[in-house]
Amino acid sequence: MEERNKQPSRRKFIQQTTLAGAGLMLASPLQLFSQTDKTKTMSKNIKSKGYAGNDENGKLKLWSFERRPVGDNDVLIEIKYSGICHSDIHTIKGHWGKQIYPQVPGHEIAGIVTAVGKNVTKFKVGDKAGVGCMVNSCMQCDSCKNGEEHHCETTGMVGTYGAPEKSSPTGITQGGYADNIVVTEHFAIKIPDSIDLQYAAPLLCAGITTYSPLMRAKFKKGDKIGIVGIGGLGHIAIKLAVSKGAEVYAFTTSPSKVNDIKGFGAKEVIVVDSAEKLQPYFGKLDYMLSTVPYAYDMSNYISCVKPYGYFTQVGQPINGELTINNFNMIFNRVNFNSSLIGGIPETQEVIDYCAENKIYPQIQVIKAEEVNEAWDKVINKEARYRYVIDASTI
Amino acid sequence: MEERNKQPSRRKFIQQTTLAGAGLMLASPLQLFSQTDKTKTMSKNIKSKGYAGNDENGKLKLWSFERRPVGDNDVLIEIKYSGICHSDIHTIKGHWGKQIYPQVPGHEIAGIVTAVGKNVTKFKVGDKAGVGCMVNSCMQCDSCKNGEEHHCETTGMVGTYGAPEKSSPTGITQGGYADNIVVTEHFAIKIPDSIDLQYAAPLLCAGITTYSPLMRAKFKKGDKIGIVGIGGLGHIAIKLAVSKGAEVYAFTTSPSKVNDIKGFGAKEVIVVDSAEKLQPYFGKLDYMLSTVPYAYDMSNYISCVKPYGYFTQVGQPINGELTINNFNMIFNRVNFNSSLIGGIPETQEVIDYCAENKIYPQIQVIKAEEVNEAWDKVINKEARYRYVIDASTI
Repeated sequence: MEERNKQPSRRKFIQQTTLAGAGLMLASPLQLFSQTDKTKTMSKNIKSKGYAGNDENGKLKLWSFERRPVGDNDVLIEIKYSGICHSDIHTIKGHWGKQIYPQVPGHEIAGIVTAVGKNVTKFKVGDKAGVGCMVNSCMQCDSCKNGEEHHCETTGMVGTYGAPEKSSPTGITQGGYADNIVVTEHFAIKIPDSIDLQYAAPLLCAGITTYSPLMRAKFKKGDKIGIVGIGGLGHIAIKLAVSKGAEVYAFTTSPSKVNDIKGFGAKEVIVVDSAEKLQPYFGKLDYMLSTVPYAYDMSNYISCVKPYGYFTQVGQPINGELTINNFNMIFNRVNFNSSLIGGIPETQEVIDYCAENKIYPQIQVIKAEEVNEAWDKVINKEARYRYVIDASTI
Repeated sequence: MEERNKQPSRRKFIQQTTLAGAGLMLASPLQLFSQTDKTKTMSKNIKSKGYAGNDENGKLKLWSFERRPVGDNDVLIEIKYSGICHSDIHTIKGHWGKQIYPQVPGHEIAGIVTAVGKNVTKFKVGDKAGVGCMVNSCMQCDSCKNGEEHHCETTGMVGTYGAPEKSSPTGITQGGYADNIVVTEHFAIKIPDSIDLQYAAPLLCAGITTYSPLMRAKFKKGDKIGIVGIGGLGHIAIKLAVSKGAEVYAFTTSPSKVNDIKGFGAKEVIVVDSAEKLQPYFGKLDYMLSTVPYAYDMSNYISCVKPYGYFTQVGQPINGELTINNFNMIFNRVNFNSSLIGGIPETQEVIDYCAENKIYPQIQVIKAEEVNEAWDKVINKEARYRYVIDASTI
């Protein structure tokens, strides 16, 4: 398909310029270009390259593909950094259902706006922008109107990758392990100047996915909050909860993470090498959030919450299946719920909050070619704590 | 052990008198007897007979055994009726864990007080009395003091059958498929004169187990409440919810129950022969209560509750294991919780409420010798809707 794109120099020009900018865009030439050549820009597919999965084997390979042209309400973002989320692995490996391939994963996307459609008001060329877990929804239903686009009641949200999408030349949305992305401006997040793009990227999934349920929990300062699973999501959850005044109890199966976790502000770190380690905490915590992305002995963790409190699961296991032992549940009297991500306004809120309060994920920036190795490390709990792909290496 | 009980005539006297009374006790002679012969009464084990399980095969056989002597705080209840609960079957068959045998199940017990210990103030001989799912707890902890004896924080509640108990000559508590029971007065429920004992019996488990979560749900008149599984518990749940002003949606897998269920007051009956039958109700109900005592496709039912609403599971599956599909949960945003039974004050409340409002379970009275057949029918969903053993046939 890319052969059809005869539009010659613009993309290369942008690419060279952004590469030269090394993370800080020289905004003016691009802006000028975009504003003077809008019609032409909008008419053609956008050439992209990224790392795509090709089957359930899950090995990613460099792939050249096309994005839709930049529409009137779209922005084109030159991707600078892209976080690696466990969801990427689950999705590409078919753990959550059959997939269409090739598919470029990635929904923690931070970059620079390099073109805007004629109706776009939220961004101008040169702005920092991000894309999280969704790129569209109906925008007509009550949920969409109330900033809960991820709970769109008609079409459902359109995921950032792997979702059927007519406008996409590949038939599905393609994610952020790539050098650019085209997205409706509503679904792009403004990234404040004060936060580096590499730190902003993980906030667009790991940040909002933990921030949203934490805020819904309406905890008070000094409340005891348990975080289960201290990886990409869990470590940000700790930082967020601590910054909001919680006393955080972190539950991990990795003894090697203890010192880091204390550094994130947790009051106590519990290395759970047997269910007995949980017993001293039964009925003690005001709220609990689990990021564990596999089936696990959930009920014993749930029992750590005080009666009538809440336990939220955000990690999504294989096939979505989680087993609850109801003998625990009838005695612990805890409310179990799950949480998806967050709406666009709340995603903007967490980015702004983290920028203002200097809450940054602990990341390891990798080259794109290291992505398969990084996935293995994520699976083996070796990530410390979020891998972020430097998109300039794609 | 029963050979040791040489106390001759008292038990026979009581037995003959109560049998002669046919459901309405002639209180005075017993009362007189009890008051004049207290010391003697209290010193010896009480002879009992009942239907006991002897292994996980679950076939019950008539068995003679002994209860503890009637202590200072105890009452002796001549059992008149005893309900059959699915929990009895699960327990005796070892579905919830290893059991000690012989074990007499039954925790829906209604009868007449035939002796009282010297400290007893709540009952006098001749009173109607009931025993539900527990017969003791520490009575010292906050839960016990607050009428939540089933959530006793020290010893835990002592179940009506199968629980290790030093004072019991058989080493474990023995339940209500029997002709009498000895129980601490605190754990006996006063049964109002206006309700027949045969209707009171099922309220002591099926009634309180559904009443307690329904009351906790704090629903308003006109709220839409779903009840899943319309058996012993479910049909009482419908009647209770309807009487409190709810619009009830009943979910059953038995088409033959539809007319009955409408008779219980349900606004709509949904025969769920496929998951698709649930879809029209997704996000529509204010609250939902499930009595299903086996693992089932729970998440799709949970999705029938409005976002941020509550779904309560009271049925206890084999090994307590329930599978939740988290893909449903992240989108439905429903709080899942479970509920055990209710405390003694609330059990008294439901009995009083049902008596006052003439809310009676729909029962089938059976002879004790029919108990094994009745169990098979309960398992095969043929009960309509609660079997109650006529204890005079033991």
